[in-house]
Amino acid sequence: MQPTVRSFDLAHLAHLELLTPKPEESLAFFVNVLGMTETTRRGDSVYLRGWDDYEHHTLKLTAAAAAGMGHFAFRASSPEALARRVAIIEAAGLGRGWVEDEVGHGPAYAFTTPDGHKMEVYYETEWYTPPPELKPSLKNQAMRYPARGANVRRLDHLNLLTSDVAGLRAFMEDVLGLRTTEMIQLDSGALAGAWVTSNNKTYDVAFTADHYGAHGRFHHATWALDSKDEVLRAADICLEHGIKIETGPHKHAVQQTFFLYLIEPGGNRIEVDNAGARLMLAPDWQPVVWTETERKKGQAWGLKTVESFHTYGTPPIEDYAGPRKP
Amino acid sequence: MQPTVRSFDLAHLAHLELLTPKPEESLAFFVNVLGMTETTRRGDSVYLRGWDDYEHHTLKLTAAAAAGMGHFAFRASSPEALARRVAIIEAAGLGRGWVEDEVGHGPAYAFTTPDGHKMEVYYETEWYTPPPELKPSLKNQAMRYPARGANVRRLDHLNLLTSDVAGLRAFMEDVLGLRTTEMIQLDSGALAGAWVTSNNKTYDVAFTADHYGAHGRFHHATWALDSKDEVLRAADICLEHGIKIETGPHKHAVQQTFFLYLIEPGGNRIEVDNAGARLMLAPDWQPVVWTETERKKGQAWGLKTVESFHTYGTPPIEDYAGPRKP
Amino acid sequence: MQPTVRSFDLAHLAHLELLTPKPEESLAFFVNVLGMTETTRRGDSVYLRGWDDYEHHTLKLTAAAAAGMGHFAFRASSPEALARRVAIIEAAGLGRGWVEDEVGHGPAYAFTTPDGHKMEVYYETEWYTPPPELKPSLKNQAMRYPARGANVRRLDHLNLLTSDVAGLRAFMEDVLGLRTTEMIQLDSGALAGAWVTSNNKTYDVAFTADHYGAHGRFHHATWALDSKDEVLRAADICLEHGIKIETGPHKHAVQQTFFLYLIEPGGNRIEVDNAGARLMLAPDWQPVVWTETERKKGQAWGLKTVESFHTYGTPPIEDYAGPRKP
Amino acid sequence: MQPTVRSFDLAHLAHLELLTPKPEESLAFFVNVLGMTETTRRGDSVYLRGWDDYEHHTLKLTAAAAAGMGHFAFRASSPEALARRVAIIEAAGLGRGWVEDEVGHGPAYAFTTPDGHKMEVYYETEWYTPPPELKPSLKNQAMRYPARGANVRRLDHLNLLTSDVAGLRAFMEDVLGLRTTEMIQLDSGALAGAWVTSNNKTYDVAFTADHYGAHGRFHHATWALDSKDEVLRAADICLEHGIKIETGPHKHAVQQTFFLYLIEPGGNRIEVDNAGARLMLAPDWQPVVWTETERKKGQAWGLKTVESFHTYGTPPIEDYAGPRKP
Repeated sequence: MQPTVRSFDLAHLAHLELLTPKPEESLAFFVNVLGMTETTRRGDSVYLRGWDDYEHHTLKLTAAAAAGMGHFAFRASSPEALARRVAIIEAAGLGRGWVEDEVGHGPAYAFTTPDGHKMEVYYETEWYTPPPELKPSLKNQAMRYPARGANVRRLDHLNLLTSDVAGLRAFMEDVLGLRTTEMIQLDSGALAGAWVTSNNKTYDVAFTADHYGAHGRFHHATWALDSKDEVLRAADICLEHGIKIETGPHKHAVQQTFFLYLIEPGGNRIEVDNAGARLMLAPDWQPVVWTETERKKGQAWGLKTVESFHTYGTPPIEDYAGPRKP
Repeated sequence: MQPTVRSFDLAHLAHLELLTPKPEESLAFFVNVLGMTETTRRGDSVYLRGWDDYEHHTLKLTAAAAAGMGHFAFRASSPEALARRVAIIEAAGLGRGWVEDEVGHGPAYAFTTPDGHKMEVYYETEWYTPPPELKPSLKNQAMRYPARGANVRRLDHLNLLTSDVAGLRAFMEDVLGLRTTEMIQLDSGALAGAWVTSNNKTYDVAFTADHYGAHGRFHHATWALDSKDEVLRAADICLEHGIKIETGPHKHAVQQTFFLYLIEPGGNRIEVDNAGARLMLAPDWQPVVWTETERKKGQAWGLKTVESFHTYGTPPIEDYAGPRKP
Repeated sequence: MQPTVRSFDLAHLAHLELLTPKPEESLAFFVNVLGMTETTRRGDSVYLRGWDDYEHHTLKLTAAAAAGMGHFAFRASSPEALARRVAIIEAAGLGRGWVEDEVGHGPAYAFTTPDGHKMEVYYETEWYTPPPELKPSLKNQAMRYPARGANVRRLDHLNLLTSDVAGLRAFMEDVLGLRTTEMIQLDSGALAGAWVTSNNKTYDVAFTADHYGAHGRFHHATWALDSKDEVLRAADICLEHGIKIETGPHKHAVQQTFFLYLIEPGGNRIEVDNAGARLMLAPDWQPVVWTETERKKGQAWGLKTVESFHTYGTPPIEDYAGPRKP
Repeated sequence: MQPTVRSFDLAHLAHLELLTPKPEESLAFFVNVLGMTETTRRGDSVYLRGWDDYEHHTLKLTAAAAAGMGHFAFRASSPEALARRVAIIEAAGLGRGWVEDEVGHGPAYAFTTPDGHKMEVYYETEWYTPPPELKPSLKNQAMRYPARGANVRRLDHLNLLTSDVAGLRAFMEDVLGLRTTEMIQLDSGALAGAWVTSNNKTYDVAFTADHYGAHGRFHHATWALDSKDEVLRAADICLEHGIKIETGPHKHAVQQTFFLYLIEPGGNRIEVDNAGARLMLAPDWQPVVWTETERKKGQAWGLKTVESFHTYGTPPIEDYAGPRKP
């Protein structure tokens, strides 16, 4: 059950690591098509950011044998909140210990979701300081507006695939203290998807059932744009760069997000979105429950969801060595 | 000093009461020009809402001898949070006691700011249930989209005038637990304005120095639109209805809000705005401090702020019977 | 062959008559959903207009046994141009004679396309004069902005179905003096569609092959909106009113129009669109020819065209008594 | 008097030559801020284009001692139309003869307006063929969308200063065959400005009274954007590049254009605009006449026009050696 008193221990989704078998092409996509800016490099990883992300980076792009998500991280609301959550995570038996040497933030506690997704939580962070040529004109902005590609503003959310939606929801609520804002419940009673948040965004993580019953896979990550007009233009830019548009632009019924889904050259699904002025302000919001019948209506304006959206994730199932649905 | 640990006791700005000497004309403005919907009436008051406000109302419009703000209210994050804040308010000597019989929400604790603005805080609320003809097609939306006038979505923020910006900031931080996100500091060291928030909106209350040194006056209240395109169209609609546009549409340097300021027929200043995808996600945000020199540059794209924006408030100073700057 | 010297005899698509078996529901759609305004009524017809249509009406909505298009009309560029075109039409053996008593314009010459669509051309017209309550604030605008429903601005174009695309193209070019801006040519060499214009809009008439080989049917008519943002909002409004969205919003590859296709309650397909700043300024534009392979890519951003878009027209084929493809 | 029968001899404003004393900075502005693309160079000139301009260039940027406009050109509708207009221009005594060796188009007939602005008219032109790396994905588009800076789409119009508005209007109508769509008439009866067009754009040339009574100066040139949202973003981009925003974004009352006026580094005023779906389709449009009183209301939404907009032109008056108002 959704707790009646909201927890504020986690502040927001902070960053994610994407794995790519085509690091150069993926980097070109994030820089030239999405309009992100490289902060630094280390080893096989390039660190990237939207122009109004306040931390060092929101994307760590790492060369790897197969596409997928390396890990993702939340920032805690305070040192005390971090300590509280680490204790709960450890008690849940999912802890993996502290990581001290990461780029762009302080000590992070590593753990896994029950489905095997790698996560971290930390408090101390490196606020981004732009070099002179990237200094913004307005001091309340993290970086100069790049005027390149789709110009994504900031990280918005990510979406996981899981073999057990209800189990992952329980973890997100009970262990991480997030709250569910919307979910899809099948006629069988099983959950097919859930959207959870730690703040006033209507979600910073979503997760849906893995079509193959595999564990720990990744569906997509999303950076936000300032307007629907910019989402439409992003589609034009993808067309010009030969980037595969999987579906959209269109509006989700769930969460009403205006979306555009892309497949970056390394194979990961990436979204750019705009939520308009929609926020989750109510502290006692009860989850909106979508039925199987309602979901069959398609997206908000009737678009039928493409099949790949329900099945494709990274690592692609042929590259995936882990457990699957029996 | 901004507390290092953020308080989450207050959830969000919930509603305000506006006083109008021209109740019929004001009501027509909020319904036909802003596109708000009447929920109910009681006594001399009409209760109104944007199409995605989740509570019973965000505006109580009350007939009165002079324009101005009757009171404004925050919703607390939980019953416990409410109790905590009431104790702190009482200890500060600003409490006025519980109000039990208001429309649309449960018991509210009434108090005043040090400058005399009337406020309330409550937790129990009436979630809006639309009548059949106003039921939305998407169940995650509070009400049917009206397709009338400017179609404001939800209450965004309000702006007070005060004789003592620094004093009001201290109250907002220390007593209410809000945090300051941006402020204007004159060369003399005096604060000329501050923007505070209880959540991830970059502000839900702003306050600026009263030109006349008067106490407890009101500058404006703002409802949010989903796009800048809609803010521009709102200006067209005001033009057609003979509603005075004071300034805008343009973009503030402070907070980067895309704004349009109107004077409703009763004399109160009303804003419609769009913030794009900008949010205040960092739990340890330190206030952006704008200098006198920076403010002289005008708004973001160079518009000179109209003089009335610095001087006009409600009640209009000629109707104002309270204390003034010596 | 496209003539090398452009004709300017026809000025623009002026209006169309739509037939509806559900006149009250259709009228409610055009007024409340599209935001059109009634100018007058006569007999079984209601005359309607967008807020910046300069003539008396752009839509004549007529009660009838089946959905379909009654006729459509072009305005000529001058009395002399009208006389020239009438002579050419008569010489082509397609004339039906002058109609003198129509609402909103002067004498019109009636004729048919070779495929049987009823057309008219006229020069003298009634410029719209708004009643006081609909007088616009800006004198260079035809009517007050209604702030109701989708707020369509002006008639943009219409689309016919035909049993013979090449034949209709020859008629449009040779008899009416229009020029082809884009067309679809199948691998067999047959034309599957063509877009023709009399002015700097990239098309004011389009026509595509009737799936059933029927004659003289209607595909859709389109009113223009000022922005893509407004097209997206129109989709929301249709959703709230239970209006069927056939496809979109999305962007056509052909002509790059940002589209939303609706089925009005009477069964006719209606589009609202936005073309951005795209115009056909070149006097010697040669038709862009799309191949069968190119068309199989779907719409601009990859949306697969829904089957009904290729087959459905009005009158619906079951109500259609005319000749069909053998 | 506006002729009752519209002439179609001139097709559209085709290009202009801007003179700049800071050629490198001006070039960087047009490429990086406006997002134009260089086609070629010759001598002291760089030829530039918006991404959907169909001809070789719409801007010839030439190094010079002072800012100003070198010349501007219309494309004729046909060889016959060109011949007709050249004869009329010669008869008016304003001809300067044929120019054969210009880049990007065929023989052009050079002449001057009565106020001394240099003009050309030509028919034969070089359609732009993009190099492989600039080939667009959609074949009905002139060039690949650059996703750089403000991404201007196409040339829209230009604005001249003149010592004699009425005289220039007579020339535009009688000699060039353009038609006046809107104008400003002072209480004295004198014209203060006029907007003329050769096509369905509501204007491709405007001209207003030179504050100093000087002859042949230049006010601004404008490239069109696809949405108002893009005009707003262009303002952000100018802010980041330190480009002076003279006024806007806002909406003109005259022509209802959504505008943003910039001063490029060389000193010339440049506008980016969006007109929504507004077109001049009526063949017999009578000029909208704005009175002195109406103009005093400011721009559409009440913005007071900045003084420099009424006085500043290029060459700046201190660099201007020609005749002035006595």
